[in-house]
Amino acid sequence: MAQLNENAALLLYPGMTALDLIGPQYVFSTIIGMNVHLAAKSKEPILTDTGVSILPTMTLQECPNELTVLFVPGGTEGTLAAIEDHETLAFVADRGARAQYVTSVCTGSLVLGAAGLLRGYKATSHWISRDLLELVGAEPINERVVFDRNRVTGGGVTAGIDFALSLAGKLRGDEYAQTIQLLAEYAPRPPYQSGTPEEAEPAITKKLIDMTAPFLQKAHSVLLGASL
Amino acid sequence: MAQLNENAALLLYPGMTALDLIGPQYVFSTIIGMNVHLAAKSKEPILTDTGVSILPTMTLQECPNELTVLFVPGGTEGTLAAIEDHETLAFVADRGARAQYVTSVCTGSLVLGAAGLLRGYKATSHWISRDLLELVGAEPINERVVFDRNRVTGGGVTAGIDFALSLAGKLRGDEYAQTIQLLAEYAPRPPYQSGTPEEAEPAITKKLIDMTAPFLQKAHSVLLGASL
Repeated sequence: MAQLNENAALLLYPGMTALDLIGPQYVFSTIIGMNVHLAAKSKEPILTDTGVSILPTMTLQECPNELTVLFVPGGTEGTLAAIEDHETLAFVADRGARAQYVTSVCTGSLVLGAAGLLRGYKATSHWISRDLLELVGAEPINERVVFDRNRVTGGGVTAGIDFALSLAGKLRGDEYAQTIQLLAEYAPRPPYQSGTPEEAEPAITKKLIDMTAPFLQKAHSVLLGASL
Repeated sequence: MAQLNENAALLLYPGMTALDLIGPQYVFSTIIGMNVHLAAKSKEPILTDTGVSILPTMTLQECPNELTVLFVPGGTEGTLAAIEDHETLAFVADRGARAQYVTSVCTGSLVLGAAGLLRGYKATSHWISRDLLELVGAEPINERVVFDRNRVTGGGVTAGIDFALSLAGKLRGDEYAQTIQLLAEYAPRPPYQSGTPEEAEPAITKKLIDMTAPFLQKAHSVLLGASL
């Protein structure tokens, strides 16, 4: 194999969603020759939005300059704080300018966008926040995983598994990714058909839209004020 | 709502698979009134088998005696070490004897079985290890999520999301679980059809069977020697 010492950097920040990270982290760590780094501002444990704390493996300063994959998970308030944090956004902009693949899941695409990395690209996000991508010059696409040149963005939370398997296929070929899929026993059987606003009961969609309205409003103003 | 101060204990142990845990942890933590505890032998960070370290929130001794949900994630060598660890197995047997739901994902069912909790129950596991359940008196079932009275077992790794949404439906009703599904945007679109031995290319299945043969052999002897 041509490259057997590649680096993937997965950004950690307080208030991120752990499942956004751990789906892709499982897949990437199964790729032989891929060093998977969990990079954060410090090595202190990162408290995620569901209450589980995860340890970074390196600081942003220690992160390799040349990355095969830069990955940003999503969240809600914590994601907006990451966008407003100059050091974090500068890191994403810097590594993203040279990474072979610039990627995200869920509202992580808002961080990529705020760092100027999605201007003129098709991209996706959590369905709640997808239209916000227009504020950072991206074209919102209603698909689970969106490839546009070297930008790869996934939808909300659980889309991370589909995203990462798709990227594994690009990096190591279909058979390799299929082997990971079988190891992960990824033959999903959702107990309900309620995973998108198109499928869910309208009352359920409305409830989540109402619940997340304050976040969306804040996200709008944060993205308009993003420093990069 | 009748019960708004329930406790779920999710067992952490070295070498467990982080994704087995974090899928269910996302779902459980979204259930209002459910305290989600990450219980381990000590509060030191737990290094999982994909290299991410997770912090326990309490020790086994601190864990509430009466649980709504006891959950055990899987892994490979680490799971066998957990089975061979008397304190861990005694904890699972003790809390499992009284928990409202006794649950697992992946090879976590081998831990439940070794603790004597699956005797006479239908159950599942990762497809690689499913037949081993016979050694602990369970009836192996080739389904993604298996309910038998209050035992709920999921298949390999990613089955944790299907498992947890199904259990959320039992605990809080279908509409509640459907709301979590929409929040998680759980409308999976696997890029390949390779998630089960029945769907995968035979050569891929054979590769994983060959790779995991030493683990299976060791698991067989560990289960035969399990202390409970």
